[in-house]
Amino acid sequence: MVESDLDQVTNLAQRLNDLCATGPGLTIATAESCTGGNIAARITSIAGRSTYFLGGIVSYANSAKRELLGVSAEILESPGAVSPECAQAMAEGARRAFRADLAIATTGIAGPGGATARKSDGLVYNALATTDDVTVQEHHFTGDRSAVIARATETALQWLVHTIVARQGISGKAE
Amino acid sequence: MVESDLDQVTNLAQRLNDLCATGPGLTIATAESCTGGNIAARITSIAGRSTYFLGGIVSYANSAKRELLGVSAEILESPGAVSPECAQAMAEGARRAFRADLAIATTGIAGPGGATARKSDGLVYNALATTDDVTVQEHHFTGDRSAVIARATETALQWLVHTIVARQGISGKAE
Repeated sequence: MVESDLDQVTNLAQRLNDLCATGPGLTIATAESCTGGNIAARITSIAGRSTYFLGGIVSYANSAKRELLGVSAEILESPGAVSPECAQAMAEGARRAFRADLAIATTGIAGPGGATARKSDGLVYNALATTDDVTVQEHHFTGDRSAVIARATETALQWLVHTIVARQGISGKAE
Repeated sequence: MVESDLDQVTNLAQRLNDLCATGPGLTIATAESCTGGNIAARITSIAGRSTYFLGGIVSYANSAKRELLGVSAEILESPGAVSPECAQAMAEGARRAFRADLAIATTGIAGPGGATARKSDGLVYNALATTDDVTVQEHHFTGDRSAVIARATETALQWLVHTIVARQGISGKAE
């Protein structure tokens, strides 16, 4: 990652930490394919994460997606590991495996190599599973491998932050 | 991580990639606590890792160490999560979970906070499980949280590289 990306991502990890330290006690887990552990690494770069960050699964091989996250063989066969269906199943699998309130998943093509006629380098699906539902975002990032991983990490952290802010808003109104 | 650490770690990840691309087809998994996903992130920073890197488990919470890696409640109670016994059980658990040839584990106190009278910031146990055995290294790193994570990541990658080089030496002699 270049310096400005790192700063932005560190700020997001710090914001997530501050929100969770003072917030409603939500727990978080990750399931990472194309980001390869970067989301977990950025969250744990801030001291004291044991309280809300339970952990993550880096499911690089399809066997890991299937056996540790419960992604079905049918999804991995078609539409494949880089698909909204796989991202959704990964997020749900991580939430189940860690018994977390929120789980964020990423799967995509960081490149170079791995692109197909219908899926190009920079295509990334993020999914966020909550106690209520699971939502998928489709991204088309530009830049080299490092840039794609950085942007996928950043958007995942941003999504977690926005989700927790929204939950606190709802929680605040209800009190 | 500062730039020089990043360079060194990137070089190690590239060396690991080169060895595995031309080597005896060993598969690798990770189990990370204090490094929080950094080892997996560095390995996957090099393109094309799906072939030998199966994935990793970031077991930040003790519940994740127990449920996903099979670390016993007895070990987590005493001697605790930062211990050679826990590192060993994490490495064995990751090797089993991913059905990998080699698994590297890290558990320690990156600091600040978390130190006790007998365990200070910078204490890190790395463990490497192979098909034959499991070995633990005890490290006492200096510096801030970022430096401890960087050094723990670096020593883990170095250990993987040395192990694979040694295996190739043995394999070469046997042919």
